[in-house]
Amino acid sequence: MPPAMREGGRLVVVGGVAAGMSAASRARRLRPDVEIVVLEKGHDVSYASCSIPYFIAEVIPDRDTLVRYDAEFFRRERKIDVRLGAEAVALDPRAKTVTYEDLDRGGQESLEFDALVIGSGARPVKPPLPGVDLPGVFVLKRLSEGEAIKSFLDERKVERATIVGAGYVGLEMAEALRARGLEVTVVELLPRVLPNFDADMSEIVERELLDEGVILRKERRVESFEPGEGGSVGYTVAADQRVATDMVLVSVGVRPVTELAAGAGIALGPTGAIGVDARQVTSEPAVLAAGDCCEAMHVVTRKPAWIPLGTTANKQGKIAGENAVGGSAQFGGIAGTSVAKIFGLEAAQTGLTVEAAEGEGRAADSVRIKARTKSHGYPGVGDVVVKLVFETDTGNLLGGQVIGREGAGKRVDTLATALFARMTVADLAQIDMAYAPPVSPVWDPVLIAANQAVKKLNR
Amino acid sequence: MPPAMREGGRLVVVGGVAAGMSAASRARRLRPDVEIVVLEKGHDVSYASCSIPYFIAEVIPDRDTLVRYDAEFFRRERKIDVRLGAEAVALDPRAKTVTYEDLDRGGQESLEFDALVIGSGARPVKPPLPGVDLPGVFVLKRLSEGEAIKSFLDERKVERATIVGAGYVGLEMAEALRARGLEVTVVELLPRVLPNFDADMSEIVERELLDEGVILRKERRVESFEPGEGGSVGYTVAADQRVATDMVLVSVGVRPVTELAAGAGIALGPTGAIGVDARQVTSEPAVLAAGDCCEAMHVVTRKPAWIPLGTTANKQGKIAGENAVGGSAQFGGIAGTSVAKIFGLEAAQTGLTVEAAEGEGRAADSVRIKARTKSHGYPGVGDVVVKLVFETDTGNLLGGQVIGREGAGKRVDTLATALFARMTVADLAQIDMAYAPPVSPVWDPVLIAANQAVKKLNR
Repeated sequence: MPPAMREGGRLVVVGGVAAGMSAASRARRLRPDVEIVVLEKGHDVSYASCSIPYFIAEVIPDRDTLVRYDAEFFRRERKIDVRLGAEAVALDPRAKTVTYEDLDRGGQESLEFDALVIGSGARPVKPPLPGVDLPGVFVLKRLSEGEAIKSFLDERKVERATIVGAGYVGLEMAEALRARGLEVTVVELLPRVLPNFDADMSEIVERELLDEGVILRKERRVESFEPGEGGSVGYTVAADQRVATDMVLVSVGVRPVTELAAGAGIALGPTGAIGVDARQVTSEPAVLAAGDCCEAMHVVTRKPAWIPLGTTANKQGKIAGENAVGGSAQFGGIAGTSVAKIFGLEAAQTGLTVEAAEGEGRAADSVRIKARTKSHGYPGVGDVVVKLVFETDTGNLLGGQVIGREGAGKRVDTLATALFARMTVADLAQIDMAYAPPVSPVWDPVLIAANQAVKKLNR
Repeated sequence: MPPAMREGGRLVVVGGVAAGMSAASRARRLRPDVEIVVLEKGHDVSYASCSIPYFIAEVIPDRDTLVRYDAEFFRRERKIDVRLGAEAVALDPRAKTVTYEDLDRGGQESLEFDALVIGSGARPVKPPLPGVDLPGVFVLKRLSEGEAIKSFLDERKVERATIVGAGYVGLEMAEALRARGLEVTVVELLPRVLPNFDADMSEIVERELLDEGVILRKERRVESFEPGEGGSVGYTVAADQRVATDMVLVSVGVRPVTELAAGAGIALGPTGAIGVDARQVTSEPAVLAAGDCCEAMHVVTRKPAWIPLGTTANKQGKIAGENAVGGSAQFGGIAGTSVAKIFGLEAAQTGLTVEAAEGEGRAADSVRIKARTKSHGYPGVGDVVVKLVFETDTGNLLGGQVIGREGAGKRVDTLATALFARMTVADLAQIDMAYAPPVSPVWDPVLIAANQAVKKLNR
C-alpha cells in the first residue's frame, strides 16, 4: 500500500483512457487538495473505445459522442492536469520520479510523485509480416486508429476489406464494414471464430457471418500483404492464395503495455501483465496499476488472469485512484464476462469454457440448450442458445455462454452473479427470474439450462 | 411426505393450467407406470395466461399460440387422463378420495388416489358492486375470460373502456385496449399505480400512461356500474361521477382458490393460501399443492408469502409432481420477481420495496439512480431507473426495482440472483457484468446503483 497521501501531495497517472481517467477522477473526488497529473501519450482521453466500430459504421454519427469528456473538461471541472502527447518513458519507484517525453514539442520532463497509477493499457499485436506497414493496413485499439480507418473509408474507393483475426473486434468490424457496403473477408488462423467460446458455440456465430455475406477463411495463415495501384495495400497472401483487397484490419489480439513498469523493476505476473494485489498495488508500494496493462484475480480459478476489458479497466481504475490517495478499496476479481453484437446475434460469455476448464484440470461437464428470448408467438421472439459449464463432482457453476437474438446477451449477467456467489447449477435452477411474454418465456433460458445441468448431474 | 408411490398407483391433479400440468408432466416423466388423472373445471389446459392481453390486443394473432399443448396432446403423448369440465368438490385426505362434478354432463364421480396435487390456482376478486354482473363487465384470469373480452371487442362497437385497478394486468390491458384504438380510463383506489413498486417508481409508469393517452383516475372508489342502451354496461359511477363506458374490466387482484383444501381440513397458512413445506406437501401427507393456490417461502423475509406468479407455479408444479410419485425435491423459495411491459416501459421488481421492508420491521435504506440501457449515442438507447433497497446495518440487499426502456426489465434477474445468494450491495458492486455499446453502458445501471448504495452506507 502507498502511505496515506500527504496534504497537497502529487498523484501521477500514466494513461488517460478508461483506467487512467477513472483513477484520476476518483482520487480527485476523495482528495480536493492533491495535485493530479495525467500523462497521456495520445491526444484524446476518456473515450469510449468499444464504440469505435459503431463510429466507423456511422451507427454512432459523430466523434463527440465517443469523447464525452475531453482533456479541457478534466482540467476545468476536475482540476486534473492532463498532459497530452506525453509519453512516460522512465520510472523510478524508489526515488518516486517519472520521466516523460513531450511528443509534440520534443524534450523530456521529470515529475516527482507521492503515488503513481499505471493505466498504460494494451496495444494491438502487429505481426512482422511483409507489407504490414503498407498504407491501408490498420490495427484498431485507440480512437486515432479508428479515425484513420474511417478517413480511409470516407476518402477512398474501398470495396473489399480483409480482416485478419476473428475475435470480438474483428467480427464487430466485419459488421461495421458490411454496414458500409464493403465485401468483407475474415481470415482466421484457428479452425473457428471467437476462441473465448467453445467451438460448438462459435459455430452459431459462423453461420450468422455466412448469412450476412461475410467470406470466412478459417485455418489460413496470412503470410504477407502486397501493394496494389497507388502504393496502398492491394493483396493479402494467405495459404498461398493472393486475394485482392482495398484495406486490411489486423485484429489478432492485444498485449499489455508493460515496458515502463518492467523497466522500473516492477514485477510482471505469470500472464506477462503487471502483477497487482487486490488493492491494485504493484510490487512497488507507491505504484499501482489498473486496466488492460495488469492482471486480475479470476473468481473461478482463483488465479491471476489477464482478460483486458473496458468494464474491468473502469472498476480497477476507480479502486487504484482511491487507494493511491490513501484508501483501502479492494477489487473483487473478474469472471471475464463479455458480450458482443455480431450482426443479428448477441454473443456473451463468463467464467470458463469447457476447453478452459479442462485446461485448468477441472473435471467439467456441460449442457447446451436452445430456447427463445421471449414467449412463443410474441413479435420479435428469437432463438437463444445457452451453454453451462459445471464441475462434475461439486456441481459448481464454472462458466456460461449465451448466443442468440436481441435480448439474449445480457442474460449472461445472471451467470456472472452466480459465479461471484459460487453457486451450483442446482442453486441457479432455483432462482426466481422475471417473466412476461415481451421479455422472456416462463422458464428463462438460463433456468432451462440449469435444470438440464441438474438432470445430467443426477444421472 | 407422501409414501413412495406404489407400482401402478394413482396420482390425481386438481387443476390443469400451469402448476397442475407441470406436476402431471413431471410425474409422468419419472413414473411411466403410474395412472395420472387431471381434473380441470374449464375446457383448456396448460395455456399461457400471461399472454392473454397480447391475444386481446391481436399482437399474438391466434388462440393456438396460447394453447400449444391441448388436452388431447397430454392424453395421447403423455398418457395423462385429462378430464375437462371436471370440478373437484370434495376431498377426503384420509380415505384418499376426491369427488368431482362433471359440469358438462352433470353428475358426480369419486376417485381414489395414492397422492393428490392441488393446483387450483387463484380467481379474480369481483367486488359485490351494483351492476358488476352486467354484460360488458369482465374479469380476466382464465383463457375463457380473455376470449369473452376479445369477442365483445370484435363483435360490438366498443369505443370507451374502463379498467378498475392499476396492477400489472390492469395496465397491460390498458395497453392492449389502446392498441385496439379504445379510449381507456383506469380507475384506481390507491393514490398510485403498481402497488408492488415504491411510489417514487410508480410515478415513472404514471407518466408513461399519460403520455400514451390513458386517462388515469386515482384515489377513486368505484361505487357501481349502470346499464346503457341495449342492456350492457353503459356507465361507471366512481366518486359520485357517472362516466360513460362501453366495457369494464375489473382487475383488483386475485385470491387463492382454497375451498377444496379448507373443506378437507388442510391447513391454510398465515397468508390465507394453502400452507406447504419446501416439498410442496400440505398438512396432509398425501396431498401436495402448487402454484397460485399456495404459499411459498420468501427468500428475503424467510417467512411464508403469497405472490401468485406463473414462474412460481411452473417451478412448484414440477416439484409437487416429482414428490407426489416418491421424489424429494425441494423448492428454493421466491423473491417475488416480476416484470411487465407497459407501453414503452419495462417495469420489474424483486424482493422487498422500501415500504415492504419497513412493514417487516427492517431498518432499510434505498438509492435510486437514472442511467441508460445502452451506450451513449447508440441507436435505441433509453433511460432506465434502478432502485435498490438494502438493510442499513448489514448492507444486505433486500430488493430492487428497475423501470426503463427496452432491455431494462430483465436486468432485475441479476438482483434476484443476488437476493438468492444473500449478497450485500458491496458484493453486488463487484460483479463483472457484460458490456458492449449495443446492450449496455460500460457501468451497467445495476452496478451504478450498487456503487451509490455502498457510498450511502459508508457515509
